[in-house]
Amino acid sequence: MRVFGIDPGSVRTGYGCVESDGSRHRLVCCGALVLPPRAAFPDKLVAIHEGLAALLREARPDCVVVENVFHAANARSALLLGQARGVALLAAREAGGDLAEYTPAEVKRAVVGYGRADKPQVQRMVTLLLGLPAPPSPHDAADALALAICHLHRMGPVAAIAREVAQAPGRGARPRSWRQFRVDVDV
Amino acid sequence: MRVFGIDPGSVRTGYGCVESDGSRHRLVCCGALVLPPRAAFPDKLVAIHEGLAALLREARPDCVVVENVFHAANARSALLLGQARGVALLAAREAGGDLAEYTPAEVKRAVVGYGRADKPQVQRMVTLLLGLPAPPSPHDAADALALAICHLHRMGPVAAIAREVAQAPGRGARPRSWRQFRVDVDV
Repeated sequence: MRVFGIDPGSVRTGYGCVESDGSRHRLVCCGALVLPPRAAFPDKLVAIHEGLAALLREARPDCVVVENVFHAANARSALLLGQARGVALLAAREAGGDLAEYTPAEVKRAVVGYGRADKPQVQRMVTLLLGLPAPPSPHDAADALALAICHLHRMGPVAAIAREVAQAPGRGARPRSWRQFRVDVDV
Repeated sequence: MRVFGIDPGSVRTGYGCVESDGSRHRLVCCGALVLPPRAAFPDKLVAIHEGLAALLREARPDCVVVENVFHAANARSALLLGQARGVALLAAREAGGDLAEYTPAEVKRAVVGYGRADKPQVQRMVTLLLGLPAPPSPHDAADALALAICHLHRMGPVAAIAREVAQAPGRGARPRSWRQFRVDVDV
């Protein structure tokens, strides 16, 4: 399975593609579309859309994952980010295939195991999981790779078993006590 | 000159095209892209982008005007609006030609003469200026037409003279007192 992650931004848009055979992850490509700071904003949007469309045509992923955001410092930065995210989502949908969205906390929980992990922790885990000689740079590329890894973990065999157990008849999605699994053995 | 206005929104995106010979305005087309409420958000973005691209190919405007927004009720609504606005700006830039942006207050000032005019006032002025038998509906279409009319007024002959006067050597853009223009006549 090949997953392409996108971390949209109006200054830099990170991307990263990961392939997995179910047990091992392999880096396909990663980087960031760095937008010329003096360019007119509509031209930046064209650059994000065209850049991502070209990368997606080349990578041919089974699924594209775009970072989902609900919070921003203020309405102005939310509008700027929203516009970049809009054209990124458009490129992802136009590429065909599946489309998934995760919040930064969901990504950190899936990759580091802790929803409030910091950026260096995420970078270290991405470097480790992909067997890279050095952390991916810029950090937008690492964030995009973390998105792709998050989706692979969510879709992986362990997650599939967990979903099956949760959906089995008579068993709710609530975690059960370890006592239910205890077997007393007479010696 | 033919101007195409876009009032982007994640529920409805209004559009309206106006042609002017400098003194009289004529309606070319207007309406709204109403997005199916249950559609997935990325599919709505594709519908806005494709819908506007088709309308712009047909209308062939000299300039596209997109509403500019700096305020929103909260970060969540700003993100939603930003995404719709992003794909609208993309379609506008891809269409070629000029691209302009005005805030709602600038539009109201140019069309009604008052920056805090309400929606019915804008609708009445648009109806009057275009010589329509009834106000354009839905109001998103009227807002888009008001954007186009705002640009025509800003680019029109009166505005051109005002700009020329403001840029003339030795004359700043600051408004001058009427006393400077007073001519005392001895009788």
